[in-house]
Amino acid sequence: MARIGIVYFSGYGHTKKQAQAVHEGAASVAGTDVTDFEIDQNGDLPEARWDELAGLDAIIYGSPTYMGGPAWQFKKFADASSKPWFVSAWKDKVAGGFTNSASVNGDKFSTIAYFITLAQQHSQVWVGTGLMPANNKDNGPDDVNWTAGFSGALAISPADASPEEAPRAGDLETARLLGKRIAEFAHKLAA
Amino acid sequence: MARIGIVYFSGYGHTKKQAQAVHEGAASVAGTDVTDFEIDQNGDLPEARWDELAGLDAIIYGSPTYMGGPAWQFKKFADASSKPWFVSAWKDKVAGGFTNSASVNGDKFSTIAYFITLAQQHSQVWVGTGLMPANNKDNGPDDVNWTAGFSGALAISPADASPEEAPRAGDLETARLLGKRIAEFAHKLAA
Amino acid sequence: MARIGIVYFSGYGHTKKQAQAVHEGAASVAGTDVTDFEIDQNGDLPEARWDELAGLDAIIYGSPTYMGGPAWQFKKFADASSKPWFVSAWKDKVAGGFTNSASVNGDKFSTIAYFITLAQQHSQVWVGTGLMPANNKDNGPDDVNWTAGFSGALAISPADASPEEAPRAGDLETARLLGKRIAEFAHKLAA
Amino acid sequence: MARIGIVYFSGYGHTKKQAQAVHEGAASVAGTDVTDFEIDQNGDLPEARWDELAGLDAIIYGSPTYMGGPAWQFKKFADASSKPWFVSAWKDKVAGGFTNSASVNGDKFSTIAYFITLAQQHSQVWVGTGLMPANNKDNGPDDVNWTAGFSGALAISPADASPEEAPRAGDLETARLLGKRIAEFAHKLAA
Repeated sequence: MARIGIVYFSGYGHTKKQAQAVHEGAASVAGTDVTDFEIDQNGDLPEARWDELAGLDAIIYGSPTYMGGPAWQFKKFADASSKPWFVSAWKDKVAGGFTNSASVNGDKFSTIAYFITLAQQHSQVWVGTGLMPANNKDNGPDDVNWTAGFSGALAISPADASPEEAPRAGDLETARLLGKRIAEFAHKLAA
Repeated sequence: MARIGIVYFSGYGHTKKQAQAVHEGAASVAGTDVTDFEIDQNGDLPEARWDELAGLDAIIYGSPTYMGGPAWQFKKFADASSKPWFVSAWKDKVAGGFTNSASVNGDKFSTIAYFITLAQQHSQVWVGTGLMPANNKDNGPDDVNWTAGFSGALAISPADASPEEAPRAGDLETARLLGKRIAEFAHKLAA
Repeated sequence: MARIGIVYFSGYGHTKKQAQAVHEGAASVAGTDVTDFEIDQNGDLPEARWDELAGLDAIIYGSPTYMGGPAWQFKKFADASSKPWFVSAWKDKVAGGFTNSASVNGDKFSTIAYFITLAQQHSQVWVGTGLMPANNKDNGPDDVNWTAGFSGALAISPADASPEEAPRAGDLETARLLGKRIAEFAHKLAA
Repeated sequence: MARIGIVYFSGYGHTKKQAQAVHEGAASVAGTDVTDFEIDQNGDLPEARWDELAGLDAIIYGSPTYMGGPAWQFKKFADASSKPWFVSAWKDKVAGGFTNSASVNGDKFSTIAYFITLAQQHSQVWVGTGLMPANNKDNGPDDVNWTAGFSGALAISPADASPEEAPRAGDLETARLLGKRIAEFAHKLAA
């Protein structure tokens, strides 16, 4: 049995869709309990949910990339996590992350790099996508890891695309595979 | 004439002290108008202050490093700056940054790296400390740039030191020299 | 009069093509002298060329992104630059950067972040693309800044594309505009 | 049984001393086989050693921080690792890292961030120090994690200190604890 939590903020619904794909991927591993922790528009999680986080085997972080980093609502959550940090409550838990933004490249790497830095402060173990990139001429947004994230799952939602239209098939499958991989490592380390 | 703004958040007063040193340094350059923009505990700046920012020649960013990045209050400001970003209102302005945290090294670099990423999204021009490090055996916290920041001014305030005790002399002088350097570049580019 | 140098390494010719576009852009600004400094396959520059670098107003850094960072040949150049660093020979020069890799996103940001860190150690002033992203559904590789770099110019050359095929039109124009922007700032600061 | 490799470059002997401490820490865990892979001054490892790397459970990366990143010799190794990368030869191995430089803070974070990026390209699992910082007023270089690295082990060797003098006691013990922690995770994941 492994318990996975997905802590994320979504501004317009695209990152939520990506979070759902991560959820599906994690839940596809037998004996895995997956719980969502959606941060609200004010950057808060209900008090009781913090206790739930302490009981997990893995915490996956997700946020859109806004102005070159995670949304402030996610950062408010991260700053509030100084409380479990003081008592090393998340030590040795598996960690992973995902982000979505409108541009093809943009500064998505900066957001994932922040997630890693946060996870390392918490003494977590970082697990990335484990995927090779799809980077030939005939690859496109329907291919797994065309967006090409290694440290975390990346997604592109063009500025004029609704959450029904984006993230697209390849990015969603990448998110699924990340969830699956994190769950597999959570099982290995929980054993 | 050059107009400099210092946009910062301070949690307990140490970063405010560092901001004051940056202010003094900038104000020491003849013909410079220096204004503070202190972000409040809810991450907000009064509406009218955003118009002031648009009229500046340089914007300097400051925040403590909390959980491996700028405080969420600073990030809320950064996210709100998407409004001037859409109209390239801060394009070509000089930028610089400073951060303070309890540990000697810690993840201060991560905070400065975020400031740079934000400034580059705004098409600003980044100016660092311009200082060599003080890294011999007999150097210590009273020496300029002992903490050794290049991309921005760094300060150390031990966890049990009050704002009266820290940042210490060397870090404050480093902050002063950063302010002075930013002001000098603002003059050059405003000319 | 402003003197610009482009220091770059190219493994297979794609980054060289990007460097040429940066060169064209810089040379398009009246009164600008642009010189290439191509690092050889052993990571070296002839001794005499280091003196030339010291006389420039701007140094632009370029390298493919290999294994998540600049090519080792570029890093060998960077390490050798500790000699001018010791005497602050590049202080206050304008700096900028560009990188190319096969994947759409990948870790290009990491390479540009390194260029910035290097430039800040040298007390240079960092100038990015100054461009907004082209991130709507109908944008593609022929659009300026579709790849969406802010801190530096990014290019995508699919793994099976020859230097005749890639970088593509949008990335090359982005590189040209970066060269032009750096030259303009070099003029302003040389004045 | 777990097999750990320490791949590192040392310029003047300080990083070698840090590597030895990491080695001791890893070897202190029962049933652990620890091997050093010292990269030579030309950035090379003998051909046969690459096969050894493929057989390990964990690879730990180490380099001094030179000009804001890992030494070029280390980067040459990293670029050569594109060969195992193409066949995912290092997938799922544990990874960790350490760096040493003369300044108190400086850009050590940049080097560790690069190690993480490299490890994530290889689909490795990143394990940091797992340590809290020693950041009170009366802490100093003899305390564990005074230098305060989370993502990796950091060390300070003042510019005028010989390898006999630095890294100092606290940084060496931090390196030992990193080696121990990596070995423990290698055992868990090899099980």
